[in-house]
Amino acid sequence: MPNIKIVGTGLLGTSLGLALSRQGITPQLADQSKSALRLAVEYGAGELTGPEPDLVVVCVPPDATAEVVIRQLQEHTSAVVTDVASVKVEIAHQVNASGLGDRYVGSHPMAGREKGGPAAARADLFFARPWVITPHAGNTNDAIELIRDVALRVGALPVQLAAAEHDKAVALVSHLPQLVASALASQLSSGTDDELSLSGQGLRDTARIAASDPELWVQIISQNSKALLPLISGMRAELQALETALTDIAAPGSLAQVHSLLTRGNTGIARIPGKHGGKFANYSQLTVMIDDSPGSLAALFTFVGDIGVNIEDFKLEHSPGAPIGLVELQVLPEASQRLAEELEKNGWRLV
Amino acid sequence: MPNIKIVGTGLLGTSLGLALSRQGITPQLADQSKSALRLAVEYGAGELTGPEPDLVVVCVPPDATAEVVIRQLQEHTSAVVTDVASVKVEIAHQVNASGLGDRYVGSHPMAGREKGGPAAARADLFFARPWVITPHAGNTNDAIELIRDVALRVGALPVQLAAAEHDKAVALVSHLPQLVASALASQLSSGTDDELSLSGQGLRDTARIAASDPELWVQIISQNSKALLPLISGMRAELQALETALTDIAAPGSLAQVHSLLTRGNTGIARIPGKHGGKFANYSQLTVMIDDSPGSLAALFTFVGDIGVNIEDFKLEHSPGAPIGLVELQVLPEASQRLAEELEKNGWRLV
Repeated sequence: MPNIKIVGTGLLGTSLGLALSRQGITPQLADQSKSALRLAVEYGAGELTGPEPDLVVVCVPPDATAEVVIRQLQEHTSAVVTDVASVKVEIAHQVNASGLGDRYVGSHPMAGREKGGPAAARADLFFARPWVITPHAGNTNDAIELIRDVALRVGALPVQLAAAEHDKAVALVSHLPQLVASALASQLSSGTDDELSLSGQGLRDTARIAASDPELWVQIISQNSKALLPLISGMRAELQALETALTDIAAPGSLAQVHSLLTRGNTGIARIPGKHGGKFANYSQLTVMIDDSPGSLAALFTFVGDIGVNIEDFKLEHSPGAPIGLVELQVLPEASQRLAEELEKNGWRLV
Repeated sequence: MPNIKIVGTGLLGTSLGLALSRQGITPQLADQSKSALRLAVEYGAGELTGPEPDLVVVCVPPDATAEVVIRQLQEHTSAVVTDVASVKVEIAHQVNASGLGDRYVGSHPMAGREKGGPAAARADLFFARPWVITPHAGNTNDAIELIRDVALRVGALPVQLAAAEHDKAVALVSHLPQLVASALASQLSSGTDDELSLSGQGLRDTARIAASDPELWVQIISQNSKALLPLISGMRAELQALETALTDIAAPGSLAQVHSLLTRGNTGIARIPGKHGGKFANYSQLTVMIDDSPGSLAALFTFVGDIGVNIEDFKLEHSPGAPIGLVELQVLPEASQRLAEELEKNGWRLV
């Protein structure tokens, strides 16, 4: 088993320490904040000292990552060093400029929470999440394998990508949605309380991630500005064309512009892979009304489980002002009709 | 009990008919499509004939609404006529120009589904949803009361707003998010399958409503273009400022621009009212890992119900490629610690 040192005991570092400890590996922990470090040790994420590490995992904020990686490469002259930052090209560039880059392999476990700090850590944070490894030409297979091994031990799914490919991918699937949600939510300031009281699930979902931490995200956005720029330009151009169409909706081409945007939105969303890598919209949906009391969800899921139908996904629809819940169940199409019949036969309110 | 006629047996008209039938009121149904009309009657949404109506509810697409409302006002010379379209000012303007507007009261039940047509109808579509009524100065209280009565009978929550206020509100909380989600999803066409395979719940939620029906939405957007224009301009200006910042992220003020956007996003999302009219982020969250098999959700919810804790909201997090589910439970803060302890003590995997 490899000797592992974790530098930075925030959410990701402490979670990694907890996950490794569960697997019988006790990492050495380090953090410049004595209180964060002590908290992580008390939680059982690792020890203050340890043997010379085979692998150092740098889990500090994106802005500090390159500098800390270089310091660890200098301090541990035979160790492989990796990091967990969400943007890879710029950090690799800075580390390689130090001349020590051969022992640095970038990586990005795609896991996180809205809350940060060691107190928010969870041993299963990485479970079933992609862990992207972004090696460069100077890396040995052994170095890469060391990180794959850690990823697998904590239950993550290792994926290998070039750093530039990774940054381009997360710009599209993570950083662009973050900025769009923030921009949308920021428009809500113009609304009155009465207007906002008409908010439904659509707005809630579209704007949800606008609640993310600005301190972390300003670092991510600034490090990935090059990959983000064409995407933000694309969104801006899309809205600009829409603005022109809305300015004179009766003009020739205006409706076609709006219709084209809505249709291209249909095409785009169909490209997001669904649960378990399947297609997004392959499930049949049934909606059941329940009362909003302890046990009513349980009764529903017990019933569905008892008749042997697997719930692929589910969601509770909000009902502002009413003590009821609408549970949307996604099931395989072949199970849908039987489930609907059984539910109705047994007095469930299908809506 | 009032005599009711429903014109248009698509999703909304058929759902309204089903809901009224359950309450012992059999509406008369009409639709220019003989097959849609027959289907609605076979479903039990109403009859082909009926007595002279006290209230006509026009449930046709937004573009056709004003014309059909006027025709119904002419045909039924003592009836009140309402409609269910998502935009109110333009329809009211056209109807009032006919000189028959005194008996027309606009309304908008805020309910819908991604699917349309009578086959998608549900008797409880309106349950616990706002039903906005937008009277004008010429309406009598009796006319308004007739629509409030129907809304209450089908379980909706009547809200009264001026038509212009309504249109401004839905532009912000419904039409802007739709266009933003469509514009975001349309950018996904530029991504490769490998890039999209890294999609997480953030992108899924932000883009979800991009799956909506373009034919319906092009009508809604075109009728509300005036209220939407300043909001789309605001979003465009926001993205333009961001584009400038990303073009030279090292320039003075660039980071501050990004940080300001993220912070204003935090402020904006906090203004969306949460479940039951409460605040959005007032619940404590616990995440439990379950295996992805029939009955495992049921076992979890049974356990939570048995210890008397109410689940305020919940969500299944997707785990691409792995047969497990992460269930996020939202509970009242005072119940959170006890629930966590009980779950852990009984072998549930808290993450």
